[in-house]
Amino acid sequence: MRLGALEAGGTKMVCAVGDEAGHIEKRAVFPTGTPDETVPEMLAFFEKEQIEAIGIASFGPVDLRVGSDTWGYITSTPKNGWANYDICGAFTGKLGVPAGFDTDVNGACLGELLYGNGRGCSSLVYITVGTGIGMGICAGGHLIHGMLHPEAGHMLLRRAPGDDFAGICPYHGDCLEGLCCGPAIGARYGIPAAEIPADDPAWRYTAYYMAQAAVNLILTVSPERIILGGGVMGQPRLLPMIRRETERLLNGYLKASQLQDMDSYIMEPGCGGDQGILGALELAAGVCK
Amino acid sequence: MRLGALEAGGTKMVCAVGDEAGHIEKRAVFPTGTPDETVPEMLAFFEKEQIEAIGIASFGPVDLRVGSDTWGYITSTPKNGWANYDICGAFTGKLGVPAGFDTDVNGACLGELLYGNGRGCSSLVYITVGTGIGMGICAGGHLIHGMLHPEAGHMLLRRAPGDDFAGICPYHGDCLEGLCCGPAIGARYGIPAAEIPADDPAWRYTAYYMAQAAVNLILTVSPERIILGGGVMGQPRLLPMIRRETERLLNGYLKASQLQDMDSYIMEPGCGGDQGILGALELAAGVCK
Repeated sequence: MRLGALEAGGTKMVCAVGDEAGHIEKRAVFPTGTPDETVPEMLAFFEKEQIEAIGIASFGPVDLRVGSDTWGYITSTPKNGWANYDICGAFTGKLGVPAGFDTDVNGACLGELLYGNGRGCSSLVYITVGTGIGMGICAGGHLIHGMLHPEAGHMLLRRAPGDDFAGICPYHGDCLEGLCCGPAIGARYGIPAAEIPADDPAWRYTAYYMAQAAVNLILTVSPERIILGGGVMGQPRLLPMIRRETERLLNGYLKASQLQDMDSYIMEPGCGGDQGILGALELAAGVCK
Repeated sequence: MRLGALEAGGTKMVCAVGDEAGHIEKRAVFPTGTPDETVPEMLAFFEKEQIEAIGIASFGPVDLRVGSDTWGYITSTPKNGWANYDICGAFTGKLGVPAGFDTDVNGACLGELLYGNGRGCSSLVYITVGTGIGMGICAGGHLIHGMLHPEAGHMLLRRAPGDDFAGICPYHGDCLEGLCCGPAIGARYGIPAAEIPADDPAWRYTAYYMAQAAVNLILTVSPERIILGGGVMGQPRLLPMIRRETERLLNGYLKASQLQDMDSYIMEPGCGGDQGILGALELAAGVCK
């Protein structure tokens, strides 16, 4: 099958054409402007391609409720022009093909499950730590939607002893995202996260909070693996610290073979940045099944 | 179909015979002794009944991994004689029928989903607050298993300002169960939870921690409803307090119609205590499909 894929992000739109086996034949990247600016460019890319379906993995919040009048919409985003925008309809209408739709992070979770470090798992958590913190969750081979979709970047956590940073989340202050996303780390130290030295104690707080999130996810959905991606995870010291801290917080409570080797339980993405677009391609394949 | 059901608990074993529509024809309750004491009594009950399958919803931890050599076992429990016990095999061998198997709380979740206050939902969280805290989770119509199964009673939480009770969980101290299960409330105040007056400030802490758990579950699996059962929830003031506190902690972040009416979003069980055995009956029906 010839399939279209769109990874719709707040800063860039990745478009690709590929097949149901995850082969990407061509791609194009457009900066995210308003829908009036950006959608026509993307349509022009796809219109030449004879695709059978399109998969869209989008920044959110999005409406994934089957049967909803606004299924396929981006809902309450502050991003200019995209609030209550029918992103699926914009493509299905002009291209005359069906669309598969999910969150960007559920898309990345699916990509990792099929082609990355989640291969062989049927339950997987994907967390991206960047401008915000997003989570995609696959349980028993199915991406979790529910009432809305996972928003576990806003999980409430206990504070590290001595940490009095208020956090930057406008809703919750010191939720996970409010403490650990890139802008939160930047606000805490007054310099961008990427410029904080590897041996700075700053990373201890980040590791502690990320590990708490990992523990609560393990206790809730019991994933067979956790994948951590996003810009903040570009700091190479962080992943080993999170693994050790997760083990310390679990304190031997769960008896599972997977937890015996934290290096293979909490991992970096295996798709080299293509997990989102590969997941979108699979969303397209899914509507053709 | 004529089906057998067993709700295997740490203090009692509820056995029933019924059908795939949730009609219970007869039942028997046996105190939980050792397997040598209790299993023969239960077998004697079922052997007369001509059942086609048995569903077992058991205290845990249990092995639910399809293909595992120890699928159908209770694993690392401290309960006398039940550690590494093949509870499914004890029934399938003697009765010559297949078994459906899950945790007691996943069973109760399923019972509420089909016959209780979870009717109409495809994603539901069931929490029981009693001797321990257990959670069953259904997402997209499927009970969540994963690497093990939900153990979210041990979720890590932030402490209420001024609360310095250490908690009683031998693994985590002040996790949710360590702070809010019946014995924790008893240890905190020196009297059984059931004897604490309705207007005692004690319930404020319990409501705060239970609400945090609800918030983190909402952000993670996005259930369409949350059901709270178990002995501690017998205190009638607690449920309204948890609803208000959940709303306060979410702070308007999620836009979902279900959250507009917390009275119908966080509810008591609707099966009058039969949610577990009804779920077990459905586990039996499931293996006949």
